[in-house]
Amino acid sequence: MTARLIDGKAAALSLREQVRVAAGTFAQAAGRRPGLATVLVGEDPASAVYVRSKIKATGEAGLESFHHKLDDATSEEDLLSLVADLNADERVDGILVQLPLPTQIDAAKVIDAISPDKDVDGFHALNAGRLATGLDALVPCTPLGCLKLLRAELGDLSGKNAVVIGRSNIVGKPMAMLLIGESATVTVAHSRTADLPGVVRQADIVVAAVGRPEMVKADWIKPGATVIDVGINRVLTDDGKGRLVGDVAFSEVSQVAGAITPVPGGVGPMTIACLLRNTLVAAHRRAGLTVPQEL
Amino acid sequence: MTARLIDGKAAALSLREQVRVAAGTFAQAAGRRPGLATVLVGEDPASAVYVRSKIKATGEAGLESFHHKLDDATSEEDLLSLVADLNADERVDGILVQLPLPTQIDAAKVIDAISPDKDVDGFHALNAGRLATGLDALVPCTPLGCLKLLRAELGDLSGKNAVVIGRSNIVGKPMAMLLIGESATVTVAHSRTADLPGVVRQADIVVAAVGRPEMVKADWIKPGATVIDVGINRVLTDDGKGRLVGDVAFSEVSQVAGAITPVPGGVGPMTIACLLRNTLVAAHRRAGLTVPQEL
Repeated sequence: MTARLIDGKAAALSLREQVRVAAGTFAQAAGRRPGLATVLVGEDPASAVYVRSKIKATGEAGLESFHHKLDDATSEEDLLSLVADLNADERVDGILVQLPLPTQIDAAKVIDAISPDKDVDGFHALNAGRLATGLDALVPCTPLGCLKLLRAELGDLSGKNAVVIGRSNIVGKPMAMLLIGESATVTVAHSRTADLPGVVRQADIVVAAVGRPEMVKADWIKPGATVIDVGINRVLTDDGKGRLVGDVAFSEVSQVAGAITPVPGGVGPMTIACLLRNTLVAAHRRAGLTVPQEL
Repeated sequence: MTARLIDGKAAALSLREQVRVAAGTFAQAAGRRPGLATVLVGEDPASAVYVRSKIKATGEAGLESFHHKLDDATSEEDLLSLVADLNADERVDGILVQLPLPTQIDAAKVIDAISPDKDVDGFHALNAGRLATGLDALVPCTPLGCLKLLRAELGDLSGKNAVVIGRSNIVGKPMAMLLIGESATVTVAHSRTADLPGVVRQADIVVAAVGRPEMVKADWIKPGATVIDVGINRVLTDDGKGRLVGDVAFSEVSQVAGAITPVPGGVGPMTIACLLRNTLVAAHRRAGLTVPQEL
């Protein structure tokens, strides 16, 4: 391997420590700790794991945690009524409703009901639009984490050719908007792209967010490019345990790239750190306090 | 010239006729004509011309027009109070506040105050976000007009390489979002792009929206590409009268491109037609009626 390994775990730890310090300062200024409300509906085991790790990280950063565990059969009305309560609750700066939701609930309606000022996932259309138009937004955690890794690795991104593979609302499109904001030249590629390897080969920066295991190969990568792998895919192994791989064929791409994130230990840890960061940002804005620059 | 000329004037006339018919049907169903409120603050002659032509087109399409002409010295408070009145006025489906505004008024605040459901310019962050996340949006008129011309010229845009030159909130970024929604592979290039001619040369579709006269040259264009010129720049001529040119060097690019919009007579007429179209769309949504497909 010739590529520098981008250590997302270390970057996330450092951001979480900055959040912890900022949370302490905030508590002194505001007379209360920043608060994150998490809502888990139903019994999906993966969702339960995600929410548990978010709650744990929240506590470690010195944030107040308000967890709501609702039944699998919860009605849309009841969930919307909980969201309304959390919107009105002064102790709550951030609201995270874990997705996916049971089929009787329209996730779009729930996202739309969350106060944009508490929307720490950055999924509300108003936050997507604030991001797109250059206003103060709450930005989705995963692309924000990718941007922080890119900035730490490359410094100024201005004029760099960036290719984002994937055009989801949660990663691809906000990632493109963030990179345009950094004055990169940004291409959004996806399943319909005619010559995907050829397009990716132009890139100084590749962000892969498609959810297809090891799709991005070594001969797609311009030598020296920086590769950010957002994918987390479980693939079968002979011993039946399976293992996690990204959207990038790590072992071969790391021979060509200049720098690359591993999976796991790359983008993943940054996502939770950015959730805490967003909660701090929301808390400061709601309290009329200046957001600390290091966040 | 070898390129097909994309006749924006004819396309706009046809869209305006569709709006006129739909406005008649709407009036029968809703018991009132769709209404567009225009607000002009101050004496800027170019703005006055724009607003006059918008009002004229509104009348010709059978829409109700509510014009408000305010003094150059109008306070922000007074303008915001007028916007609040128009938001509440049931006869008003669309609100257009002509930009630029005098310096004592914060345009961002005014845009934010317009009800997103009446924001027929599509400048409100909620509409930018609805567009970005694939929800029903009111889309800025100029990129919407460009998209309509592209669809009429090319049909399905899926898999085509599109390069948008310029990253403004009004054209470049919403244009990129529209093209991503059409499953094109989309690159947003701009003044910081390292090798702009090289990037543009990859494109099947070029949308130039930079405001620099005749910047895009023939050797930037892949033979056969479709070129949409959003620029409207006045350049000096020997006789002192000046003439309008686009961002594309029309006389040379039209030797290489497969199809191209002229300036004037290309995108310009479509912008006003799309304003009328957006007003009709807003009227239908507000009245709970299905938006006619041909719009």
